[in-house]
Amino acid sequence: MAVPEVVIIGGGFGGLFAARQLGNVPVNVTLIDRRNFHLFQALLYQVATGQLSPGNIAAPLRAILKRQRNTRVVLGKVTHIDVPGRRVHLEDGESLPYDTLIVAAGARHHYFGHPEWESVAPGLKTVEDATEIRRRILMAFEKAERTVDEEEKKRCLTFLVVGAGPTGVEMAGAISELARHTLARNFRRIDPARARVLLIEGADRVLPTYPDDLSAKAERSLKRLGVEVWKKSLVTNIQDGRVTIQKPDGVELLPSETIIWAAGVQASSLGKILAEATGAALDRAGRVAVQPDLTLPGHPEIIVIGDMAICQIDGKPLPGIAPVAMQQGAYAANLIRKRIRGEAMQPFKFRDRGMMATIGRAAAVGVVFGVRISGWFAWLAWLFIHLLFLIEFENRLLVLTQWAWNYFTRNRSARLITGDQQVTGAGY
Amino acid sequence: MAVPEVVIIGGGFGGLFAARQLGNVPVNVTLIDRRNFHLFQALLYQVATGQLSPGNIAAPLRAILKRQRNTRVVLGKVTHIDVPGRRVHLEDGESLPYDTLIVAAGARHHYFGHPEWESVAPGLKTVEDATEIRRRILMAFEKAERTVDEEEKKRCLTFLVVGAGPTGVEMAGAISELARHTLARNFRRIDPARARVLLIEGADRVLPTYPDDLSAKAERSLKRLGVEVWKKSLVTNIQDGRVTIQKPDGVELLPSETIIWAAGVQASSLGKILAEATGAALDRAGRVAVQPDLTLPGHPEIIVIGDMAICQIDGKPLPGIAPVAMQQGAYAANLIRKRIRGEAMQPFKFRDRGMMATIGRAAAVGVVFGVRISGWFAWLAWLFIHLLFLIEFENRLLVLTQWAWNYFTRNRSARLITGDQQVTGAGY
Repeated sequence: MAVPEVVIIGGGFGGLFAARQLGNVPVNVTLIDRRNFHLFQALLYQVATGQLSPGNIAAPLRAILKRQRNTRVVLGKVTHIDVPGRRVHLEDGESLPYDTLIVAAGARHHYFGHPEWESVAPGLKTVEDATEIRRRILMAFEKAERTVDEEEKKRCLTFLVVGAGPTGVEMAGAISELARHTLARNFRRIDPARARVLLIEGADRVLPTYPDDLSAKAERSLKRLGVEVWKKSLVTNIQDGRVTIQKPDGVELLPSETIIWAAGVQASSLGKILAEATGAALDRAGRVAVQPDLTLPGHPEIIVIGDMAICQIDGKPLPGIAPVAMQQGAYAANLIRKRIRGEAMQPFKFRDRGMMATIGRAAAVGVVFGVRISGWFAWLAWLFIHLLFLIEFENRLLVLTQWAWNYFTRNRSARLITGDQQVTGAGY
Repeated sequence: MAVPEVVIIGGGFGGLFAARQLGNVPVNVTLIDRRNFHLFQALLYQVATGQLSPGNIAAPLRAILKRQRNTRVVLGKVTHIDVPGRRVHLEDGESLPYDTLIVAAGARHHYFGHPEWESVAPGLKTVEDATEIRRRILMAFEKAERTVDEEEKKRCLTFLVVGAGPTGVEMAGAISELARHTLARNFRRIDPARARVLLIEGADRVLPTYPDDLSAKAERSLKRLGVEVWKKSLVTNIQDGRVTIQKPDGVELLPSETIIWAAGVQASSLGKILAEATGAALDRAGRVAVQPDLTLPGHPEIIVIGDMAICQIDGKPLPGIAPVAMQQGAYAANLIRKRIRGEAMQPFKFRDRGMMATIGRAAAVGVVFGVRISGWFAWLAWLFIHLLFLIEFENRLLVLTQWAWNYFTRNRSARLITGDQQVTGAGY
């Protein structure tokens, strides 16, 4: 009998954990990704604010999987999934057959019907997103230093973060710290500490998926860092360097040079292909409704995990976070192993070990094993949990060194303005 | 009396050392650079081969100079120098007056009348150059893994480095190590160790500016690493993925996917502006001939240093290396200090402490204080000297950690393929 072919689309936490767990299962594994590295997206905001380098939070997929002889990595873009023919088609014309398919292609940010906002209000999902946002944040201070127009100076020093989920909260806190501490004495004409950092949230509290009291604590921490929190507020327009915000008490027009989008995500468009071919339901965010064993209805050979799957447990959908993806990846691998042995598998259960968000240099809020924690101790817990999430030991060592340095000096050496065509061309 | 204005163009080793030495001189200092960071170019090849992250070898200019109250940093591009009017003009229309001008705008690579080669054979001068070369090297292996055409596979696994100065030698060694050690077992269809790395040099030996015996030792080390060294060979054409090479025994047409240019440099075009305005001589590389005190003839208020200056000492021009730029920067600052005090200044003298090039993981050649060294000890010396050249202590700490890790594991975690428009667009 031929060795079963398992194809995994996506090398994020879901796909990578599935691949690693399949190392000693008698199957051939092909992991397809558009990038040659696994990326720890939850720390991208630290790249965007100059605390870490992209290399610190990424690890080459080939290096992670090189000792796994049954596994190969394919760098390529999936354009189509032929469900009846059981083949995955790549952009370069190649197609790969599968016996079991694990789809873990993740999500990108989403602009609720305003795709034109992407160029003015980038989101934070890729290394390039992060270095572009870093460029914009740092260039805003540079522009403010150069201009003599007071209105323009104010506009350049107004930073808007849209969406107060963990990414938005962490981003707003990090920008405010950058302005108030790291950049102190860096300029001669402006005081970076005068920068306004606004966090815009539609719900009535920050971190809406967290317990109420932690939301309140996070908001207090943000305010201590100098962040203005606008709740029950929606961005209704972005045009000509001005953002229109619908607040509970009216409409405000806010001139801002730097807008960062942390408001919504949209699952990979492969979800739509799967839904159309299998009849599985899609939610508004493009996520595919999966069965209790994470497969698609009538298609036990297709498993969808991570941010692409909408998995209801006790009537509540699981959040799009790394622990869910990791556990689903491991579950998918286990399901394949048990099938080969002819054993039955229990439905997927999420072991909720908690969730955490950090706010600036020494504060965090979170729930760990059901216990709510906040403040300095929570920040320390956040630190160590995030170090453990880094796939390679080398990165743990480097990130720990960098964090320790940043903590004691408040310096952030990775604040490079790179990638602008105007400066990267020929020399002077 | 008004405080004298000193304008410095360029934040490389020359400009930065001048600025730092002017910290306690009663002048106003303005340092202009197109980038917001100082970059240690000699280690760019390690970024290009995935050993270090860009942030490790760069330091924000504002952070370095923040405690120097008489100094401001201007992020901007100099478009013109008005020599009679003593003003520096920036691209955005601003112009800055000076009493003394220090020009340290450096050099870019140069294609000897073939500017069209730049896109196929990039050089290594900026962070973007390095990440682009990193992308090309890693993509070549990925392409080789994907193709079924044996000829194309061979073409993808042929790496050409043009020019065997220190950068070319270090680059060729690093690519060969990447292929032979770091990427071992990373692929399933190709053996990366089969990659050909060719180093093409016009002179009759590698490292032509080094003593003969060290050139021979460097060549032996390169061959041990698997690099093919072609001496007395010139690239005469690059077209359609093929490089034409004029060898002593005839012409060879070499299909190659990845070509790296380390052959020639061209000084900043500001040199031409200065030469035309002052009558100073320009050499073929666009460098300005300076007087023994580094000023221009008839213009004691203009000092040219570093890669832009051609400075003859005992009839021999100084090489374009960091120690020359650093010492010239310090000299320029001293000259300004002495002028203010009404004191005379001796002509510039270069204290030659040596030169070094590293070849792979544990070999180097060099001359230190007149003593020729090679092998493992030279490599260790290279390591520590280069650590000292890093401007910020933080970077020294991180680079040392990273190097130690790389040495013991042969891993290179920073080998990310980034910046390609095709992969950085919308998600799957």
